[in-house]
Amino acid sequence: MNARATVELKSADELEARLREIGAARYHNLHPFHKLLHGGKLSRGQIKAWALNRYYYQASIPVKDAVVLSRFRDRALRREWIHRIEDHDGREGAEGGIERWLKLTDFLGLDRRYVESTEGILPATRFAVDAYVNFVRERSPLEAVASSLTELFAPGIHRERIEGLLANYDFFTDDVLAYFRKRLDQAPRDAGFALQFVRENARNPEEREAVCAALSFKADVLWVQLDALQHAYVEGHVPPGAYVPEE
Amino acid sequence: MNARATVELKSADELEARLREIGAARYHNLHPFHKLLHGGKLSRGQIKAWALNRYYYQASIPVKDAVVLSRFRDRALRREWIHRIEDHDGREGAEGGIERWLKLTDFLGLDRRYVESTEGILPATRFAVDAYVNFVRERSPLEAVASSLTELFAPGIHRERIEGLLANYDFFTDDVLAYFRKRLDQAPRDAGFALQFVRENARNPEEREAVCAALSFKADVLWVQLDALQHAYVEGHVPPGAYVPEE
Repeated sequence: MNARATVELKSADELEARLREIGAARYHNLHPFHKLLHGGKLSRGQIKAWALNRYYYQASIPVKDAVVLSRFRDRALRREWIHRIEDHDGREGAEGGIERWLKLTDFLGLDRRYVESTEGILPATRFAVDAYVNFVRERSPLEAVASSLTELFAPGIHRERIEGLLANYDFFTDDVLAYFRKRLDQAPRDAGFALQFVRENARNPEEREAVCAALSFKADVLWVQLDALQHAYVEGHVPPGAYVPEE
Repeated sequence: MNARATVELKSADELEARLREIGAARYHNLHPFHKLLHGGKLSRGQIKAWALNRYYYQASIPVKDAVVLSRFRDRALRREWIHRIEDHDGREGAEGGIERWLKLTDFLGLDRRYVESTEGILPATRFAVDAYVNFVRERSPLEAVASSLTELFAPGIHRERIEGLLANYDFFTDDVLAYFRKRLDQAPRDAGFALQFVRENARNPEEREAVCAALSFKADVLWVQLDALQHAYVEGHVPPGAYVPEE
């Protein structure tokens, strides 16, 4: 009934192998909603619902990373981690990931104030994303870092997405997908650091197990968001108060 | 796109009327999963999945109420609220709601250790329930009290449930449904107090609006749990790691 390891993880290599197994089994690239999205099977309205909901995730990432930063007593670690906040928020002269995401929602015809208000998102999106922010507040710094490890598996899905959206929808253009292209560079660098960190700082089987559980938790955070989109916008059960596409 | 009031709520009576409208429009008695459950349309396996997931909600209620209690600086208010914790946890010589719920899951054939471990519940259940606990920690005491107001609408659904389960499934017996029967007395008393409290303590349109938003939030917490059950166990998309019924 449960996919967690029952075998003790005795080394950093065994930990890394187990993390890669979790990614292969539970990362959201396996979710049917992504297959529909990348395969050209969604209407423009369904893609708008996806982009609107995903905005809340994007907008919460720097908040999450600020909480992570606040958990580190080690200045060197904070100096390493801080660029993640700027990658999303941007800084003078450098656009961030949130601005890139808003360009995507602008392009799709969503009103920017409506997107930024987040009032039309699915409650399940909000609960899942907030669970992520609370997780890094409540768990150990090691688990907080480990929960970012889904980025190990992100480049594959971003590449698939760029190719799929351009090939299968006539309205997408390359510059609108800048968010994903940028993450092709950012995610591997960040994931590499986090992986090295958990390899060095999870020092016994219990800590390695906690690292694996943090990755599974984060995979659930991503999966739940797609389950909710599929239920609402593919199967047609939009809950009270949520966005209803007109197209 | 949004169901919230745009009209200022000028009095306690206007507040109460709006709260009752929200219940009539958004309480989870309207959810298709409950219609299936009460109408005899679910398999025993689907009912087990419901009882297993709902256990996490039941088990979290006294934790939620302990947080609410911790927000009150007024001793009289704490003395009024504390019985809610005991209603669920029980006390020497008095069984509580959690024990009654476990009798239901026992009866359905679920292993008690498995239920109590909560390891097989849907991630969406966990995120929604945890969102409720976090809400009462982070919002004002007034909003914390207001979020309990779904109990205003509970007796109807409990009555429907007792009747529906007994009439439409041959395996249910009355004593197994003791949880719901007990709540027929408890919920109206608690809801009455909470309603009186928000009527007296929401003193301007902004505070009344916050009370309404808290009730809508709580309705979402309940609705998301049923959406997740329907998606997983009626439409057949059980997410990785969650309980899979054998029957």
